[in-house]
Amino acid sequence: MQDKFDELRKRYEEVAALGAAGSLLGWDQNVFMPPGGAAARGKVQSVVSEVAHLKFTAPETGALITEVYDWAQAKGQESFEAAFLRAVKRDYDHEVKLPSALVKEFSLATTASFEAWHKAKQASDYSIFAPHLDKVLELSRLKAEALGYAKSPYDALLDMYDPGLNREKLDKVFAELAAGLTPVIKAINERADRVSNEPFKGDFDLPAQLRLSEDILKAMGYDFSRGRLDQSAHPFSTGIVAPHDARITTWTQRDWLPASVYGSMHEGGHALYEQGFPAEFAFTPLASGASLGVHESQSRFWENLIGRSRPFAAWALPLYRKHFPGKFDKYSAEDLYRAANRSEASLVRTEADEVTYNLHVALRYEIETRLLDGSLKVKDAPEFWNAKMQEYLGVKPTKDSEGILQDVHWGFGMIGYFPSYTIGNLISAQLFAALKKDLPDLDARIEHGDFAPVLAWLRRTIHAKGRTLLPEDLLQEAIGEKLSVAPFVDYIKTKYSGLYGF
Amino acid sequence: MQDKFDELRKRYEEVAALGAAGSLLGWDQNVFMPPGGAAARGKVQSVVSEVAHLKFTAPETGALITEVYDWAQAKGQESFEAAFLRAVKRDYDHEVKLPSALVKEFSLATTASFEAWHKAKQASDYSIFAPHLDKVLELSRLKAEALGYAKSPYDALLDMYDPGLNREKLDKVFAELAAGLTPVIKAINERADRVSNEPFKGDFDLPAQLRLSEDILKAMGYDFSRGRLDQSAHPFSTGIVAPHDARITTWTQRDWLPASVYGSMHEGGHALYEQGFPAEFAFTPLASGASLGVHESQSRFWENLIGRSRPFAAWALPLYRKHFPGKFDKYSAEDLYRAANRSEASLVRTEADEVTYNLHVALRYEIETRLLDGSLKVKDAPEFWNAKMQEYLGVKPTKDSEGILQDVHWGFGMIGYFPSYTIGNLISAQLFAALKKDLPDLDARIEHGDFAPVLAWLRRTIHAKGRTLLPEDLLQEAIGEKLSVAPFVDYIKTKYSGLYGF
Repeated sequence: MQDKFDELRKRYEEVAALGAAGSLLGWDQNVFMPPGGAAARGKVQSVVSEVAHLKFTAPETGALITEVYDWAQAKGQESFEAAFLRAVKRDYDHEVKLPSALVKEFSLATTASFEAWHKAKQASDYSIFAPHLDKVLELSRLKAEALGYAKSPYDALLDMYDPGLNREKLDKVFAELAAGLTPVIKAINERADRVSNEPFKGDFDLPAQLRLSEDILKAMGYDFSRGRLDQSAHPFSTGIVAPHDARITTWTQRDWLPASVYGSMHEGGHALYEQGFPAEFAFTPLASGASLGVHESQSRFWENLIGRSRPFAAWALPLYRKHFPGKFDKYSAEDLYRAANRSEASLVRTEADEVTYNLHVALRYEIETRLLDGSLKVKDAPEFWNAKMQEYLGVKPTKDSEGILQDVHWGFGMIGYFPSYTIGNLISAQLFAALKKDLPDLDARIEHGDFAPVLAWLRRTIHAKGRTLLPEDLLQEAIGEKLSVAPFVDYIKTKYSGLYGF
Repeated sequence: MQDKFDELRKRYEEVAALGAAGSLLGWDQNVFMPPGGAAARGKVQSVVSEVAHLKFTAPETGALITEVYDWAQAKGQESFEAAFLRAVKRDYDHEVKLPSALVKEFSLATTASFEAWHKAKQASDYSIFAPHLDKVLELSRLKAEALGYAKSPYDALLDMYDPGLNREKLDKVFAELAAGLTPVIKAINERADRVSNEPFKGDFDLPAQLRLSEDILKAMGYDFSRGRLDQSAHPFSTGIVAPHDARITTWTQRDWLPASVYGSMHEGGHALYEQGFPAEFAFTPLASGASLGVHESQSRFWENLIGRSRPFAAWALPLYRKHFPGKFDKYSAEDLYRAANRSEASLVRTEADEVTYNLHVALRYEIETRLLDGSLKVKDAPEFWNAKMQEYLGVKPTKDSEGILQDVHWGFGMIGYFPSYTIGNLISAQLFAALKKDLPDLDARIEHGDFAPVLAWLRRTIHAKGRTLLPEDLLQEAIGEKLSVAPFVDYIKTKYSGLYGF
């Protein structure tokens, strides 16, 4: 039986190696590829992913899984073999459940719908996108039927990104978040001028911004011998072969320093996760985050819980002064802390601060669930969007390009993806609260740039597990808790009442 | 039948797309990959090339080739279809002729022999490498038998790199070269002090070296929107997907400016060839050089015939002055020209100038042909090497690391590869002589940095043909000549008698 397992493992290694080639193709495309290479690159990528898909979904893979599954589980729930089989079976079942005709139709439809979204956003004309969104929803319903679900078709889609999550749980999560955050947002709006982000505005040398990011990443424990930092149009992180080669990019804006700094910390958080998988997980389905939500918890943990904390500002101030001589002389650590935490209700999710961010997600969640079950018509969605923005954030888009057309996700066919962002925020606050208990001098450590015990704690509780556990079990093992909203809302209330004085 | 052709073409596209992924993996490994990624990268590369190999050598490929070959040829010798089939059949026949057991054994043997070579070179101890070289030769003989040949087993190996070439032709080439060049080398040795390369020695800012290379490459016509220039340990060029994405690297040495400049021009010459293939050749076997020798002719053309010419020095002097303020004020264009052409017999091929270079190759050719046919024993090769160095160049290695162990090729199992370097040099001189006839004001053009007519001429005669023709036919079509030694020897004699005054 060991032979069969080895055969399955070798088969998966080949799939993973092709996946690694695909990751590098994607990384290069966004970082270094000359523009003339674009058209050919699309073909190369589609061949590589198609070859990997065919190899993975071949009946031989399924037969091997069936043969060795029980043998592997008998080795113990926590054994490498058992975890390998659970993960590979999950992926295999998922991929073979979708009829290839549907996969192809979905791929064609989302290619068209992405183009339509792009045009629609540029023209701020929802009518260009609406019929494509209709088609994406129709095919997503078919996908959900093919994948199967207990209660709601939406759950089947959700499960692709965050196993174990469902609409029932999310309805509660978002209701609790809206209830907890709306009063905070209101209180902040009434005191908008009390916090200034002036220190981060100005003219900041771009190479110096990258050097600052490097210093911060090194302090966080990002291993540059197993990764790199480059620039791209949008920041991203990608594990070429985790944990051996996990790269990040950031962006730079001359007049707004936080773009590069917090872009780097966010992607650095993702990459620390990937660098933290055990080496023997490389080329297995275990060298992956437990879910999108857990992955996002790692990026948000470093970006927000650490990076926007008061002790972090105290540690970082000398770095800001070193890289931008003269520019930060007049500011105190408290000024930096406040600048990194100005909150303001705005129209665009990707520019939202940590207070308002999750209500942007709540709104998308409410719309996409209603669109999928048919209780909201595609044509009525923009109006619903605008009304909800008013309700949650007190602001209202004047054009759809700043409203319902702002995000690419639905254009790409990614229904059920948005909630992961909020799950990540919630988990990051839960982890931070637990870490504080385990490490009572956490603030002092951060203030001295001593992030090693923080990383060690994340390595042990989260990173080292890779994808051996479902998110729920991972959280239970790590901190003995279920997913919950309260720690995040508490964190926001405490922090922002202090900042704004309410 | 068109359907079958389309099917074959699609099949080949997939193989080529996997090849493109492999090229990017190789490029990244040499340019940007963090060191920790090395071990995993080897696995990814071997999976990608194995998958491509299996897809290409599948019986379905052979069946399609057989089915459409005559149909394609009937479209006319010069048709795309006919050329496609000739090239794909050549590659397919080659790959399937080698039994997979032999391919595997060769791969294992050369992995071991490469490691042994590395150790042997470091220790300057030939005895570490000798048994591995024996094995490589034994397997190379088996390869030659499997591939088949008319007269000499060496011809079968040669044919992999330079179709149509054989030992009979090469014996004459190298004899003629040795006879023509030895007196020139002797004459130069007697006047060694007459040419100084002092202008190129000093302390040259590394980023400025790259900017200088960029300026030269742009003038040559290298299209940066379909390529890039980066740095690596050794300069190389790689067509990720020719002609859409053809990249180059160079190296930089603070104290020796020609390393970066001529590295860039050499690789730029290779890349101009790849950028010059017709767009419809992308993802076909025609998007490739006609042979290694023809490819090398393009790099040497720009590096030596153009780059080390008197009018080039006149054009380049202001650029040198611009990028290295003050450093070139005291030198004239003639000083630059002379500095770029100092010749000196030395021990190491990769550092050899254009006069002595081909005798380094001649020596290797004589040794590898004799080793293969058994007329020279592996144990006697170092002595043969040293005696030949004395005979050709008047210098003799004092240790094998500077002698027979200097090159990696045999360690990699590449028997029959070296002659391509010389073929490239010969063709570059033939092309240059023909170009001069077609473009009587060539010198004036070069002096003004007007390389457009030069590139246009190469595009038309060489680049646009891709791999549609065998090297011999390509040369015949381009300039109405067969491969010949005289133009190169004439070029060397004229140039160096002028430089050294003999």
